[in-house]
Amino acid sequence: MRIDIITCVPKLLEGPFSHSILKRAQDNGLAEIVVHDLRKYAINKHGQIDDYAYGYGAGMVLMVEPVEKCITELQAERDYDEIIYMTPDGERFEQRIANQLSMGENLMILCGHYKGVDDRIRQKFITKEISIGDYVLSGGELGAAVIADAVLRLLPGVLNDETSALSDSFQDDLLAPPVFTRPAEYDGMNVPEVLLSGHEAKIAEWRFEQSLQRTKERRPDLYQKFMDAHPEIPAKKGKKK
Amino acid sequence: MRIDIITCVPKLLEGPFSHSILKRAQDNGLAEIVVHDLRKYAINKHGQIDDYAYGYGAGMVLMVEPVEKCITELQAERDYDEIIYMTPDGERFEQRIANQLSMGENLMILCGHYKGVDDRIRQKFITKEISIGDYVLSGGELGAAVIADAVLRLLPGVLNDETSALSDSFQDDLLAPPVFTRPAEYDGMNVPEVLLSGHEAKIAEWRFEQSLQRTKERRPDLYQKFMDAHPEIPAKKGKKK
Repeated sequence: MRIDIITCVPKLLEGPFSHSILKRAQDNGLAEIVVHDLRKYAINKHGQIDDYAYGYGAGMVLMVEPVEKCITELQAERDYDEIIYMTPDGERFEQRIANQLSMGENLMILCGHYKGVDDRIRQKFITKEISIGDYVLSGGELGAAVIADAVLRLLPGVLNDETSALSDSFQDDLLAPPVFTRPAEYDGMNVPEVLLSGHEAKIAEWRFEQSLQRTKERRPDLYQKFMDAHPEIPAKKGKKK
Repeated sequence: MRIDIITCVPKLLEGPFSHSILKRAQDNGLAEIVVHDLRKYAINKHGQIDDYAYGYGAGMVLMVEPVEKCITELQAERDYDEIIYMTPDGERFEQRIANQLSMGENLMILCGHYKGVDDRIRQKFITKEISIGDYVLSGGELGAAVIADAVLRLLPGVLNDETSALSDSFQDDLLAPPVFTRPAEYDGMNVPEVLLSGHEAKIAEWRFEQSLQRTKERRPDLYQKFMDAHPEIPAKKGKKK
């Protein structure tokens, strides 16, 4: 999979893509992430890419021309499954969207900055508008990094066994159960006995019950959705013991 | 405000804090962000900080000892308003939480990695568990960067007029209206006439109606909340014109 990211602050994205699984995915040839500096497409030799918003007291807006140039240049090179714009008023990103996007070949992500991009770009080019949550950030760069991470880790071969995605939260609509590692006793606090028992079936049952309980307590919305989809599970499960 | 971030991949965080507003906030003495490498607190000379999870087939878990050492060392130096753990099963981050956190003096953020941290750390030290959204990432680092960005941009003096937070989405429970900048006509697409009129009252009304309409279409949940809180606004507002 290839992900092209268009930004006016390319250096913001240096860390996230040069380390950890995103680097490994690229080193292994499973993913290619290309960051494009919008300033390369500036409208003049002063490097201008934004201007004051019409009708606002304050706030800079990314101009149509540089963004259009960059997008059309990329479109001439390959077909994109989605041209995504990161914006707080977009669709809220969730695991389901990560799963969908991970089926694609080429994604383009445009990062907003300051007040955003001229709306005409959104009308003409953007196929999907995504928000990573109900909060405001100074730009779309962290959002683009979040999407790249969430999507690329789903590609076969990116994660190894030790980082396996199979027992993640959300993959089965439940939150993950608590985890423990050595030592079994630390400063008076013990690991739950069942986890030390070696009894696989009991451990699986404990983990499932912990998942249910945690989801019920913390995310009643997800819990209800899960129980509705699984009428075979008695409602008494997920109660605190 | 000071933010301490504990991570086992400190290099992931180099970009986000060395550029843009987070750098400016630090240069101006308004914020201090200190990234702590968990490996400095490893339990042995091999740099071990994680181990296999009890009762799992796969998946590494951050051990109690190194995390406890790092947290208690920081706690000995100053009081923390919150010790936050980034985890998909935490409370969903939203603007309201960013506003609350921006009132504090010192925040500590622990980034999970792989399967997370030994649950005993959560029980003993963590005062707030936060998720930036319903999706899984390879670690808590991007989440910590999101929180730092969302919180620090609210501090007085961090944003200048051109990046002003006043007209952001979510600050008044509505999505922001569309924005446009020069040129007024581009490739047959025009900026809405009202924005060129110079008539401040009409522009303000247009922007408010666009905000309402966009919120109603894209986020009926937020729209309902806003209308419930503002019974003086007739429901016919926010209709498409």
